[in-house]
Amino acid sequence: MAKAEKYTIGVDLGGTSVKIGIVSEKGKISKKLSVESRSADGPDAVIEQIKKGIYEILKKSKKKIYGIGIGAPGVVSVKKGTVENPPNFPGWEKVNLGKLIEKEFNKKVYVENDANAAAIGELIFGMGKKYDSFIMVTLGTGVGGGIIINNKIYRGEFGAAGEIGHVTINNEGPRCNCGSFGCIEAYVGNHYLVSRIKKELPDHPDSKIWELIDDDLEQLSPKIIDTASESGDPYAQSIVKKMGYFLGCALASVSNLLDVSTFIIGGGVSGFGKPLFDSIKETASLRVLTPLRDRIKVHPAKLKNDAGIKGASALVFYKS
Amino acid sequence: MAKAEKYTIGVDLGGTSVKIGIVSEKGKISKKLSVESRSADGPDAVIEQIKKGIYEILKKSKKKIYGIGIGAPGVVSVKKGTVENPPNFPGWEKVNLGKLIEKEFNKKVYVENDANAAAIGELIFGMGKKYDSFIMVTLGTGVGGGIIINNKIYRGEFGAAGEIGHVTINNEGPRCNCGSFGCIEAYVGNHYLVSRIKKELPDHPDSKIWELIDDDLEQLSPKIIDTASESGDPYAQSIVKKMGYFLGCALASVSNLLDVSTFIIGGGVSGFGKPLFDSIKETASLRVLTPLRDRIKVHPAKLKNDAGIKGASALVFYKS
Repeated sequence: MAKAEKYTIGVDLGGTSVKIGIVSEKGKISKKLSVESRSADGPDAVIEQIKKGIYEILKKSKKKIYGIGIGAPGVVSVKKGTVENPPNFPGWEKVNLGKLIEKEFNKKVYVENDANAAAIGELIFGMGKKYDSFIMVTLGTGVGGGIIINNKIYRGEFGAAGEIGHVTINNEGPRCNCGSFGCIEAYVGNHYLVSRIKKELPDHPDSKIWELIDDDLEQLSPKIIDTASESGDPYAQSIVKKMGYFLGCALASVSNLLDVSTFIIGGGVSGFGKPLFDSIKETASLRVLTPLRDRIKVHPAKLKNDAGIKGASALVFYKS
Repeated sequence: MAKAEKYTIGVDLGGTSVKIGIVSEKGKISKKLSVESRSADGPDAVIEQIKKGIYEILKKSKKKIYGIGIGAPGVVSVKKGTVENPPNFPGWEKVNLGKLIEKEFNKKVYVENDANAAAIGELIFGMGKKYDSFIMVTLGTGVGGGIIINNKIYRGEFGAAGEIGHVTINNEGPRCNCGSFGCIEAYVGNHYLVSRIKKELPDHPDSKIWELIDDDLEQLSPKIIDTASESGDPYAQSIVKKMGYFLGCALASVSNLLDVSTFIIGGGVSGFGKPLFDSIKETASLRVLTPLRDRIKVHPAKLKNDAGIKGASALVFYKS
């Protein structure tokens, strides 16, 4: 008899919603749902929502659940299962999320920072299967990262490693939300990107972007820039190329420091496709030290939809 | 009876000379000597010089030698003991230095990249005894580095990790020897520093530096800048402060990426003393992410003279 496939619950905790799914060891989602995270109402409310969501999905499936993985924002102690000061969760200092969920469901629970969970998701289910070492970069509102070295996540001294978004590319560059200047996030994070293009766009009256946003700058988004770029708009194409250049500058520093040459790019903006990846690769290859030059690889993440749920559930398989 | 102290031979291979010493497990040098490295004459000549030096020092001491450590420039495979393409060693492709020396002396030989050996030296004999994790930065002609995480050197995919000198602080900054732009080495490496100051100095006719160099710009060196700074020359002090600022920018990126907060600064320029370290710490603390802010520590290396010999011999104790 074939060995039965193992199933896990993956919980992707975000500021707006908690996404929950039942995921097989092959990385397939059999059930999923989403509940509000109620982050504004404090940690107790959030924990109740997570429990509610898990109870709901358990009712929908007869699969035996092998363990629960949770990807959470903020500083996570993997050993203790605590989540500290997640951004956009007011009133939340340090909560032992792991223990609380473990007690409620009597299952082993694995908690990890969401960027690290994304990297582990790629390692277990995605592009990372091919590589022992790679850097996961998630592009979205922020720029996050996870470092995989010899099939293990690199966590640093206190579990906060991988903050690629706050690698400086220009010490006198634009101010970043973190307080520093010229972080890569301040160039390619969604808000920064959109607000830069809002300022530039009036100088490009012929750009197709104007049509796509109905002449209303408030409608500008990375998605619109991508659409314009794919339709051949030269200005939009130059934006994408420049994003790749900025990212390539940061990733060259990372490669030189860590001697890792494979980058996997996920998150919303990674939908930009080939021109973005080509530009990242071109710049990074030009800027790294000679021995790394031919080894640089830049791939889109394989987990796209539900990457958060899959990454969280991968924690169970990564650990076991 | 007290356990007898163990002794090792440390070999510091440089482009000009091979420095060799007998070093106790407490990090004390009992004998040392230096032979020409004859790097221009190709690998065979260099290897003969190393052997010659080791035979010579063995003759001078009756201590039982526990093992031999070699710190070498270039890419080193620690497992295989090979040294690949060391800069300033023409005709040297890939040489199995470890095996050759092991065979000759019938002792266990440990070969490591010189920057990593410096980090291991601090870990075993120096400042690093107090810290499980730290980044070693060596300032000299180049800017090198070694990453110690939980008392282990971090080597990356192919043993080339720790190239802090080629972390970019400004993507449009001065061209670096490596081919990229704005690497921290292109700001604070000896040659770059001196050539920048040569250009600036004419704008500072009152600087004490002029007196110290006898009005001859060719005499300018980091040592002179240090002397002028210590004697209170405002322009020289501003140079040191700015060096610290540049380094702080690079180290903030490194801290954010690796979640490591302790930096140990060695190499020639580290003789600059407190004003340099204060400036590095000030900048790095301002630029790192909030959770790291209060944790940043910047120390001068403890191993100063003969740091190369001691770092090489530390390889034996690190391994065993």
